[in-house]
Amino acid sequence: MSEQTQLIPGNSLITETPEEGRALAVKIARLTIKITQPDAEVREKLRPTYANDAAMLIAVGQTVAAEFAIIAQANNYWR
Amino acid sequence: MSEQTQLIPGNSLITETPEEGRALAVKIARLTIKITQPDAEVREKLRPTYANDAAMLIAVGQTVAAEFAIIAQANNYWR
Amino acid sequence: MSEQTQLIPGNSLITETPEEGRALAVKIARLTIKITQPDAEVREKLRPTYANDAAMLIAVGQTVAAEFAIIAQANNYWR
Amino acid sequence: MSEQTQLIPGNSLITETPEEGRALAVKIARLTIKITQPDAEVREKLRPTYANDAAMLIAVGQTVAAEFAIIAQANNYWR
Amino acid sequence: MSEQTQLIPGNSLITETPEEGRALAVKIARLTIKITQPDAEVREKLRPTYANDAAMLIAVGQTVAAEFAIIAQANNYWR
Amino acid sequence: MSEQTQLIPGNSLITETPEEGRALAVKIARLTIKITQPDAEVREKLRPTYANDAAMLIAVGQTVAAEFAIIAQANNYWR
Repeated sequence: MSEQTQLIPGNSLITETPEEGRALAVKIARLTIKITQPDAEVREKLRPTYANDAAMLIAVGQTVAAEFAIIAQANNYWR
Repeated sequence: MSEQTQLIPGNSLITETPEEGRALAVKIARLTIKITQPDAEVREKLRPTYANDAAMLIAVGQTVAAEFAIIAQANNYWR
Repeated sequence: MSEQTQLIPGNSLITETPEEGRALAVKIARLTIKITQPDAEVREKLRPTYANDAAMLIAVGQTVAAEFAIIAQANNYWR
Repeated sequence: MSEQTQLIPGNSLITETPEEGRALAVKIARLTIKITQPDAEVREKLRPTYANDAAMLIAVGQTVAAEFAIIAQANNYWR
Repeated sequence: MSEQTQLIPGNSLITETPEEGRALAVKIARLTIKITQPDAEVREKLRPTYANDAAMLIAVGQTVAAEFAIIAQANNYWR
Repeated sequence: MSEQTQLIPGNSLITETPEEGRALAVKIARLTIKITQPDAEVREKLRPTYANDAAMLIAVGQTVAAEFAIIAQANNYWR
């Protein structure tokens, strides 16, 4: 567990609640962007591009849904 | 359960009926847009863009389907 | 069951046959478009756009496949 | 079984072999296009568009993969 | 097994290793392109288009991932 | 196991932790690009294209999510 995580915060997919699971999905999605474009300045410049573009906002939503599907199953849907 | 939810209304994926599950899928999809673009005014400006564009309407539909797949499985398909 | 459904016809994912399940997938996909763009006139105007555009026809097909995946699993693949 | 099928040939997802399952996936994908654009003449005109466009060929491939995922699971992967 | 396969090499999703499973996913993805555009000359002309376009390379990657998801599950993940 | 792997590093989907599983997903996604465009020089030229384009960064994220879904399931979500 001393492994330094860059991609999965806490090195676990298990969360206590759906809300925390969704927040984890958002973070994991952002960390993938971060390792693909490690330059923080470039990422900052790109942020308004997707936050102000309807098609990209939808695509961000699809990515978060894909990450959340994995986390929800890992947590047995918090049933 | 006192956790303030921003991403999953009611902090649960469980609903009584498929209709309520689908409505939850729509809400969760919208909440992802909301945290990606927190400015309500900008979101209002973008709304006509995707509501009047055939390709974006289809993409919204794909996002809702992805969210609903998770919720339907969480509810064991309301069998 | 007196709940008025807007999103899931019959408020159920269960169908008797694969054909009916596929038809339900098509209807659910259309109902998502309908709540995103509630103006019937606008939807009518957009219809020829996607029915005459190869890329959009493919995207419609992907959406229906995603909805059908959920319904098929709900029905245990009508095995 | 006297139901006239438009969407699922044979009104069944069960096939004897993976090859037949894949062929069924291709047919189901095409039938979705057909009900979205029922005019055969228009479909004929669109065919060269996607058969000669690399991005669309890839998108067709993604659609067939999505349909095949459902059929493969229905057939327990022909194990 | 005397069936001539065009879509699924070997008419089976079962492979000995993950590497072979991934190679099968790539082949199946290519065979879908082949039946959609049967003209080898046209396919040869399109190849540089997607091999030199970042967006298309990513889309090819998504297609292979979708095919591999099916094959990996068929093989119980080679656990 | 002496098989030379080009597509799946280590010829296995099993990892010890979610972090390692995610790193494997990233590597597998890159190896698919590599066999589709084997020329390292061309790949190097394309890298800035997708690392500086918001839409492509999102698409890369979707690809990694798709690969990770397979790996996470293979590892029973490291529960």
